[in-house]
Amino acid sequence: MPIEANNPNKKTWISVPENSDFPIQNIPFGVFLTRDDIITIGTRIGDQAIDLGALHQLGYFDGIPLTDDIFLQDTLNDFISDGQKTWRLVRNRISELFDINNKSLQHSSAHKKIVLFSMDEIEMQLPVQIGDYTDFYSSKEHATNVGSMFRDPKSALMPNWLHLPVAYHGRSSTIVPSGVPVRRPMGQTLPKDSERPVFGPSKLVDFELEMAFITTDANLMGEPIPITETEDYIFGMVLFNDWSARDIQKWEYQPLGPFLAKNFASSISPWIVTLDALEPFRTASPVQNPEPLPYLQLKGNHSFDIQLEVDITPENGSPTTVTRSNFKYMYWSMAQQLAHHTVNGCKINSGDIMGSGTLSGPTPDSYGSMLELAWQGTKPIRLNNGENRTFIQDGDTVTMRGFCSKDGIRIGFGELSTKLLPIFKSKSKK
Amino acid sequence: MPIEANNPNKKTWISVPENSDFPIQNIPFGVFLTRDDIITIGTRIGDQAIDLGALHQLGYFDGIPLTDDIFLQDTLNDFISDGQKTWRLVRNRISELFDINNKSLQHSSAHKKIVLFSMDEIEMQLPVQIGDYTDFYSSKEHATNVGSMFRDPKSALMPNWLHLPVAYHGRSSTIVPSGVPVRRPMGQTLPKDSERPVFGPSKLVDFELEMAFITTDANLMGEPIPITETEDYIFGMVLFNDWSARDIQKWEYQPLGPFLAKNFASSISPWIVTLDALEPFRTASPVQNPEPLPYLQLKGNHSFDIQLEVDITPENGSPTTVTRSNFKYMYWSMAQQLAHHTVNGCKINSGDIMGSGTLSGPTPDSYGSMLELAWQGTKPIRLNNGENRTFIQDGDTVTMRGFCSKDGIRIGFGELSTKLLPIFKSKSKK
Repeated sequence: MPIEANNPNKKTWISVPENSDFPIQNIPFGVFLTRDDIITIGTRIGDQAIDLGALHQLGYFDGIPLTDDIFLQDTLNDFISDGQKTWRLVRNRISELFDINNKSLQHSSAHKKIVLFSMDEIEMQLPVQIGDYTDFYSSKEHATNVGSMFRDPKSALMPNWLHLPVAYHGRSSTIVPSGVPVRRPMGQTLPKDSERPVFGPSKLVDFELEMAFITTDANLMGEPIPITETEDYIFGMVLFNDWSARDIQKWEYQPLGPFLAKNFASSISPWIVTLDALEPFRTASPVQNPEPLPYLQLKGNHSFDIQLEVDITPENGSPTTVTRSNFKYMYWSMAQQLAHHTVNGCKINSGDIMGSGTLSGPTPDSYGSMLELAWQGTKPIRLNNGENRTFIQDGDTVTMRGFCSKDGIRIGFGELSTKLLPIFKSKSKK
Repeated sequence: MPIEANNPNKKTWISVPENSDFPIQNIPFGVFLTRDDIITIGTRIGDQAIDLGALHQLGYFDGIPLTDDIFLQDTLNDFISDGQKTWRLVRNRISELFDINNKSLQHSSAHKKIVLFSMDEIEMQLPVQIGDYTDFYSSKEHATNVGSMFRDPKSALMPNWLHLPVAYHGRSSTIVPSGVPVRRPMGQTLPKDSERPVFGPSKLVDFELEMAFITTDANLMGEPIPITETEDYIFGMVLFNDWSARDIQKWEYQPLGPFLAKNFASSISPWIVTLDALEPFRTASPVQNPEPLPYLQLKGNHSFDIQLEVDITPENGSPTTVTRSNFKYMYWSMAQQLAHHTVNGCKINSGDIMGSGTLSGPTPDSYGSMLELAWQGTKPIRLNNGENRTFIQDGDTVTMRGFCSKDGIRIGFGELSTKLLPIFKSKSKK
């Protein structure tokens, strides 16, 4: 079934800047605080944010089975729970309303005044209440690079890596939206040639360029999701920065995986771009050899051609793009990840978030972390201002962008921009 | 400040069976479904469940700053958010109301009819909405046993183990209360002497005898909790069964830790026993050598003398107690765990749950899992009915109990009882 809202010929009566990530073919979902300090669910076309709660109250969603308060909430969880059929009806209706040939809202300045906000008068919020957050490790290039450094190049990939999408559970409580600064963590590290750890600020704070998908309620506990059905339960995707403290990670991660090295912060872009909007940009995943077990096999194209880039902007400086990668390099598809995640009956809820793992490409300028780009500090990255970086410094802002582009249509994720603050100093209250 | 509700001389007008886990000195908190299908927050004395929502509506909590609907909720999260001072006021008031010398409720049969339920007419629920679940690995005996088996006896403990409380994030979505059966998971395992994994039912399903603590909102993201303050943020404790599939675990767990081997199910006992109620049972933790880093140092007794035991009951059989252990064997205290967890600024919320890790004692009859008790299948455990067990079989019920006992007062956790069902069979709908 073609998705009406994806029609590439559709024009909108909202002014859309050239190269905007948000043409009328995108229609992402997010949560924002309006100029009147009200939290609402919305979408975006060009540089206009659209209050879906207000649109619904004005009757523009009549005929679609929605509860009255579905958009008057501070998270998208309930709307996501409504399921794929409802997401499509709503997205198609929005597309119709903002179609240049549709006069209803276009010609009602009273309604437009209530419904439309310019992006600079709203504040984007975390779009979902995240129940559980899982991070995969599905880029073969990244796993090989890190395995080479943390262990040795000969056994860089663990024996299980080519047979299953390796993953671990992360911390939901510290996932923040774009714009919220994060702090350099304190922690234990093991100095070189020492047997005793020391305590202090992490010296090796890094970004990880990832994307993440957000699910709807998918199964009962104990019941796997067959791989053929997995994509029905994926609402959409965001950019994801899995902040990492490499020195803490190296000392703590065995045998149970990363913990404090990761759980101090993760950042996500605030607009969830639906899997439907990404449909025209499907592409093949890398060839898998050996062939995976049957429960992980799925014919067709299940990756997406999403171009990714990361800038570092020093305090009072200008941005330097330090890497360009692509989501399509990911070895294990989202369908495979979700089939694997649930094959043991693990329950998936609305608002769960699953990270891709660092999306490193095949060439050194497409690696997805400073650890790899500057190869453990041995190949510093030169910034525009002449400074070098091997890891992220206090005051640096890391900005991630992602977009698909084909046949004159560009669907993007906007920016995920996060500043690194220095370590926390407790107030001298004692 | 002595906690009034802990007065060992207090008697109640509720009949309390001998050796009950729930004398008037306990006063745990839980959530239950009443005979009228209403979900409420409650407590328990003897075999009577007490509806705190109804008590509050009847005015019995007057003078304590509580919102009207604080107990009319399906989780304890908001009450826990109210903080330690409020928990104490409420627990003391309950203690006062049910004191044998207090006539108010005791002499109102109309009120008693509304407020009291017998345990067999209610259904216990999950007591909190769990935001994040962390599992520690804090028993030295368990870590040594497992390290010996999964790696080798010489490097059983990783170099970091004695310096920090090792932990990993678990899955919240599959934590269920006592009484909810769990399913044997399917998954990938690596047959002996093979290089290719196979897919099928786990053959090595195990329990892990743990306890867990439940936190309140403790800090802002980015701000550590000093170890001296940690216990103020611990609401209480439950029994915890961290179900594990050993064969899946062995194949998947490197390098990022256990995932599907654990996230198919964890079970908790439904009554949260407050840290206040456990106060009289404080005891020392094991001596720590080497001395931990300063942020993990805390004088005084920060463990609790909680006796633990596990039964296995085959389908239609009688229980066999397979192990007896104690919470006090745990090497890293809860205070140390929480200080470590937040030293990097990780945010802790109301309703977060933190497992101790398997609580193995020093002797083979005090180990906390079948993996250790039957030593990787080499020393089968004999049940009452003459059958042997090396792991858990379909239809077996695993029952955990825990209690403190001193000076004639017994404070317990009740039972955590969970049946293992066979693998899920999909309905032939295709």
